[in-house]
Amino acid sequence: MPDSWIDPSPDTGFDLNTLPYGVFDVGGDEGAGTRVGTAIGPHVLDLGAAARATGSPHADVLGAPNLDALLAAGRPVWERVRAELVEWLTDPAHEAAVRPHLVDRDAVRLHLPFTVADYVDFYASEHHATNVGRIFRPDQAPLTPNWKHLPIGYHGRSGTIVVSGTDIVRPTGQRKPPTEPVPVFGPSARLDIEAEVGFVVGTPSAMGERVGVDDFADHVFGVFLLNDWSSRDLQAWEYVPLGPFLGKSFATSVSPWIVPLGALEAARVDQPVQDPEPLPYLRGERPWGLDLRLEVRLNGHVVSRPPFAQMYWTAAQQLAHMTVNGASLRTGDVYASGTVSGPEVGQRGCLLELSWSGKEPIRLPDGTERTFLEDGDEVTITATAPGAHGGTVHFGEVTGRILPAR
Amino acid sequence: MPDSWIDPSPDTGFDLNTLPYGVFDVGGDEGAGTRVGTAIGPHVLDLGAAARATGSPHADVLGAPNLDALLAAGRPVWERVRAELVEWLTDPAHEAAVRPHLVDRDAVRLHLPFTVADYVDFYASEHHATNVGRIFRPDQAPLTPNWKHLPIGYHGRSGTIVVSGTDIVRPTGQRKPPTEPVPVFGPSARLDIEAEVGFVVGTPSAMGERVGVDDFADHVFGVFLLNDWSSRDLQAWEYVPLGPFLGKSFATSVSPWIVPLGALEAARVDQPVQDPEPLPYLRGERPWGLDLRLEVRLNGHVVSRPPFAQMYWTAAQQLAHMTVNGASLRTGDVYASGTVSGPEVGQRGCLLELSWSGKEPIRLPDGTERTFLEDGDEVTITATAPGAHGGTVHFGEVTGRILPAR
Repeated sequence: MPDSWIDPSPDTGFDLNTLPYGVFDVGGDEGAGTRVGTAIGPHVLDLGAAARATGSPHADVLGAPNLDALLAAGRPVWERVRAELVEWLTDPAHEAAVRPHLVDRDAVRLHLPFTVADYVDFYASEHHATNVGRIFRPDQAPLTPNWKHLPIGYHGRSGTIVVSGTDIVRPTGQRKPPTEPVPVFGPSARLDIEAEVGFVVGTPSAMGERVGVDDFADHVFGVFLLNDWSSRDLQAWEYVPLGPFLGKSFATSVSPWIVPLGALEAARVDQPVQDPEPLPYLRGERPWGLDLRLEVRLNGHVVSRPPFAQMYWTAAQQLAHMTVNGASLRTGDVYASGTVSGPEVGQRGCLLELSWSGKEPIRLPDGTERTFLEDGDEVTITATAPGAHGGTVHFGEVTGRILPAR
Repeated sequence: MPDSWIDPSPDTGFDLNTLPYGVFDVGGDEGAGTRVGTAIGPHVLDLGAAARATGSPHADVLGAPNLDALLAAGRPVWERVRAELVEWLTDPAHEAAVRPHLVDRDAVRLHLPFTVADYVDFYASEHHATNVGRIFRPDQAPLTPNWKHLPIGYHGRSGTIVVSGTDIVRPTGQRKPPTEPVPVFGPSARLDIEAEVGFVVGTPSAMGERVGVDDFADHVFGVFLLNDWSSRDLQAWEYVPLGPFLGKSFATSVSPWIVPLGALEAARVDQPVQDPEPLPYLRGERPWGLDLRLEVRLNGHVVSRPPFAQMYWTAAQQLAHMTVNGASLRTGDVYASGTVSGPEVGQRGCLLELSWSGKEPIRLPDGTERTFLEDGDEVTITATAPGAHGGTVHFGEVTGRILPAR
């Protein structure tokens, strides 16, 4: 890949390997509304303005107030727009037209980048599911009989998906400690994170139609990070028989920069061997394992490095499963991987696992201990992946701080 | 209530007791777009046109292409608009302005009346939950320990909520018959209905804020019928541990006429006694039991008459529970009661119960038998409730026909 005419220092991670899409406004300038941008070096490039200045055929989708129009435009447009961004940022002939539309990244406020339609959360890490099974159902086999036959998932609450940086109020509700005969009411005492990877659908599908596992890249626009905040005590009391509800629905945080699938070609890897072999509708030509390396920080200290390449089910298999019954897709549908946990203790993607349900507190370098989250705690998830020509794709971060229960 | 100047014959059920809201277009006139209307006698009244003709202050919300603006307008507007509709239809002074905007109900096509935000399905009938527990988990207590402490619910798929009359394609997927060692793939062999009552939120709430059980009527705009189509074989194999997913997500049908809460004052009844007494956040000043009498027809034959007044948890309690953790509400949020089943066999709201999981086929008057739905079957749910002054509130119908799997 040629170099950009933009000075890469200071190194902020976002170079030509990523070119993610986000939605921003400039502080103190709310009246101007939100705009679509890409992160490059220490800047955000206003893509609508750059498109108009260069006479781009994509000025309409890039000049919209959010990513909805670009998502709906479909894969050929996604590919042409990405190629156009590279051209703008590498060809010195475009510098004069494009440079005026660079905004200092520190000066912008980032927004939820698209309108969320439905939200599905999967449960695709064998290590996570095994650990949770051992903790929640110690008298049974850790994996349920269906787990290796289908990617287990459930619908979450779209309306409480919030952008990184949004404060999270500690949820309140019913929980039943084992020592109590009846449920008690109050703030959750076991508030947790789940480090996940999210996917957003661009191209919809019709009701009654299936999307094949090899059609993944025709429908999914991009990838981002997601923190599926979880109240373990609310969840444990409510989830039998119809699954998680209030233990999850209070908030889900997402990173503001959507990394297009086109940036992840070099990150594709084989997924773990699936035994038993899944049914034909879950088998693809070429696997969609993705070598994303996550990092979870609690109050600035790294507490886990979950390896996404270890996920048992891929996002392509999840999409095929989600639609095999004829359920339609809409532009803006979000689905998430489920907690990313690797085989090692230091690769577990939630505190439930890291502290083994509170029995083994984790020690932070500042001398404090944690089992679950305390008020004021801040959690940040970041990730990188291999880019083209030895480069690195960056996902930015999803962060959130816990406020006391109201 | 005074009489309407509209000739009530033929009796279509929709008189001044109901005045429901729906969205229609007139066949052959697609270019004109969709309009908001109410059903009255054999007519639909074009409410935007009537509002303009009468100089109503609500011409904006009633002139919109769907109910979104009316839903968002809030309870004081809901009450004023309903009073205005009564005035238009009873005061002869309005007849000249209003009559030209009556459309023959047989000539209109009805649409999904609002933009669905999130969709939550509850499980609030003790009789249904007990029957399902006996069928699915015969070795355990039929009700889980949490059932009488909280209204159990889960999120469903908003994007596959369709309006009455939409054909339903039989879903395909994985199921594991007890006789097989591994799952098999194919069309669902146990396709079912669930007769439910749905509620739509008008007034939103902020994240971190709770909506109290007595604030129900400030947030919920209206009531409708809902058929939560269910594939029992897909569901049985997938639902442990995270709840129903593909067994439900292929389609949910709703009736096109939204009955405003203001029509249901005479239908309010005490709910069944709750023992144990629920936690304080689930207790209200005045109960929101509703005496809706449902009727389920299969190919025209009545197979069940579920009594909504028997529901253990009310819609007001469900709303308070859904937000107790700080989850926000959006205009257009839908939630449903769960299958409505009474204590009698002829009051069960799904075929799983009516045929006791296929062991006791139901006999139709045409001489055929059913355990679950066959291709070509048509299911219609209707309901009535007591109206003011001895009148009757009608809910219209939700209907759907099964097409073969693709």
